[in-house]
Amino acid sequence: MTQTFEIAVIGATGTVGETLVQILEELAFPVGTLYLLAGSNSAGASVPFRGKNVRVREVDEFDFSKAQLAFFAAGPAVTLGFAPRATAAGCAVIDLSGALPAEQAPPVVPEANAHVLEGLQKPFQVSSPSPSATNLAVVLAPLRGLVDIQRVSVTANLAVSALGREAVSELARQTAELLNVRPLEPAFFDRQMAFNLLAQVGKPDAKGHTDLEKRLIHELRAVLDTPALKVSATCVQAPVFFGDSLTVSLQLAAPVDLAAVNRALEAAPGIELVEEGDYPTAVGDAVGQDVVYAGRIRAGVDDPAELNMWLTSDNVRKGAALNAVQLAQLLIKRLV
Amino acid sequence: MTQTFEIAVIGATGTVGETLVQILEELAFPVGTLYLLAGSNSAGASVPFRGKNVRVREVDEFDFSKAQLAFFAAGPAVTLGFAPRATAAGCAVIDLSGALPAEQAPPVVPEANAHVLEGLQKPFQVSSPSPSATNLAVVLAPLRGLVDIQRVSVTANLAVSALGREAVSELARQTAELLNVRPLEPAFFDRQMAFNLLAQVGKPDAKGHTDLEKRLIHELRAVLDTPALKVSATCVQAPVFFGDSLTVSLQLAAPVDLAAVNRALEAAPGIELVEEGDYPTAVGDAVGQDVVYAGRIRAGVDDPAELNMWLTSDNVRKGAALNAVQLAQLLIKRLV
Repeated sequence: MTQTFEIAVIGATGTVGETLVQILEELAFPVGTLYLLAGSNSAGASVPFRGKNVRVREVDEFDFSKAQLAFFAAGPAVTLGFAPRATAAGCAVIDLSGALPAEQAPPVVPEANAHVLEGLQKPFQVSSPSPSATNLAVVLAPLRGLVDIQRVSVTANLAVSALGREAVSELARQTAELLNVRPLEPAFFDRQMAFNLLAQVGKPDAKGHTDLEKRLIHELRAVLDTPALKVSATCVQAPVFFGDSLTVSLQLAAPVDLAAVNRALEAAPGIELVEEGDYPTAVGDAVGQDVVYAGRIRAGVDDPAELNMWLTSDNVRKGAALNAVQLAQLLIKRLV
Repeated sequence: MTQTFEIAVIGATGTVGETLVQILEELAFPVGTLYLLAGSNSAGASVPFRGKNVRVREVDEFDFSKAQLAFFAAGPAVTLGFAPRATAAGCAVIDLSGALPAEQAPPVVPEANAHVLEGLQKPFQVSSPSPSATNLAVVLAPLRGLVDIQRVSVTANLAVSALGREAVSELARQTAELLNVRPLEPAFFDRQMAFNLLAQVGKPDAKGHTDLEKRLIHELRAVLDTPALKVSATCVQAPVFFGDSLTVSLQLAAPVDLAAVNRALEAAPGIELVEEGDYPTAVGDAVGQDVVYAGRIRAGVDDPAELNMWLTSDNVRKGAALNAVQLAQLLIKRLV
């Protein structure tokens, strides 16, 4: 008989939370009782799991000592408000919000730095990085022994689903209004999102950087264990429902051996390499899939020490929910 | 009495050609006779100019000795086929297709390297660079004395109008089909363009680079007169009708003085700088305008020698038609 675990999912009605519950079922995760939790607005809703509808309860009323592991898939404020209660009750925490400092809850991508989990003390606290950092880490990890990366420049064109269901609805509504030549009334976004690109996702700080960009940089450095890596990141909001697409330019210490890079990516877990000439897209390839798609692997036009690539992955699934469940699969071995 | 000039526009029925004719009228360009030319498919159509409909004729039957200046706004094949005839007839050529080598027809952006025109011999041949190169050159030119640029990394998210009217129609049609839950049948694009990003525009060469990317790099170097500048470029096809958006990361030889950069951009011609915190977009700002919009000017998160920016401009107007007409305004001074 397999041992089972009592699992809590906070933010269970959100895009990531709901996908996370689906993946727990798909992967036959050894769930005993599943506690679905959310803020008071969503409490009372229900989410399907193993053929039953599980009722969503208020996180504020939950006794975390009932759970052995909790996924925090709501925003940073919810993590900051309730993760300490979980930890105090001895419940392992997997945070997807980026709210916890790396020293307290190290960001982990199983394909890149699973060994970090072995060094954790109970009660475990670990972070599942932002989708862009996860995507990048999965692809850069297998190249670590092969190329000496001096600098990473990345433009992450992000799907609106990163901002939740309201953002998805608003892109659809704005698009329909424009196609029907009705006046556009932005609501969730502060301007036209349909057939447009927004230069930033969230408010920038005094130096001009958004939280998402800083999170990408810090998490990537932490996961790859390269604290001094130079990273330039711009997160752009694209009129795409699901699936992030990244253009990545790496500056290397020496000319790149493209054949070796292709072989390493082919052999690595979590990556699907698309052959030269063709390329993957969010909608056509990545959405609903468990891998990061990589394509357009090429050196610079006349700089052999430049390595460029195009990456696309399901931001909700591969970039968030699946990574968190994979972390849980590794952590429960140490909860036994 | 003002002197007038006989002007030919080849590709007069295309998105760029039609805008070019509009701009000739808007700027009261001293046109005597306007010859509108196109391939046999479009001949017979007419384009409005100064309150009249000007009939489009077949370029193949045109006697270029009738014109003093010809704009080539069709594809590279048309330029290669007919620009030599124009030159042989003593007609000045402004090519927008990128087909002519830089030694023969130097790429010029008036805000960046207008002085090149003074060195030209009759009959003049000059190139109006690709929209992305034009956009970048307008913004980097005023920074030349201020920062020492070691490397440029650019992701150009391009509007479908770059590919002409069929591409615009197809994005609209695909979007409507998806919103109406009808099966998607890609025609102009080989896959779903609506709510998606395509990793490349045009076919890549054996090394993985597209013509557009190589054109961007070579034209930028030529216009800025920095032949050894390292440039990494990725051109992405975005589901946007009009207006290109570029994320640009510059690596500098020394820490950047952001206040000085902002002052230089504020003072430079052809640029509208959007204040910190806010940002410009293609649809909301750039489309229909005669300037490149710049925003999100910032150093690196922890690298003071990194300069990042977001640029957006009307690819058809500022990036192509207007630049070509501005070149013509300068060239006719030497045709007098």
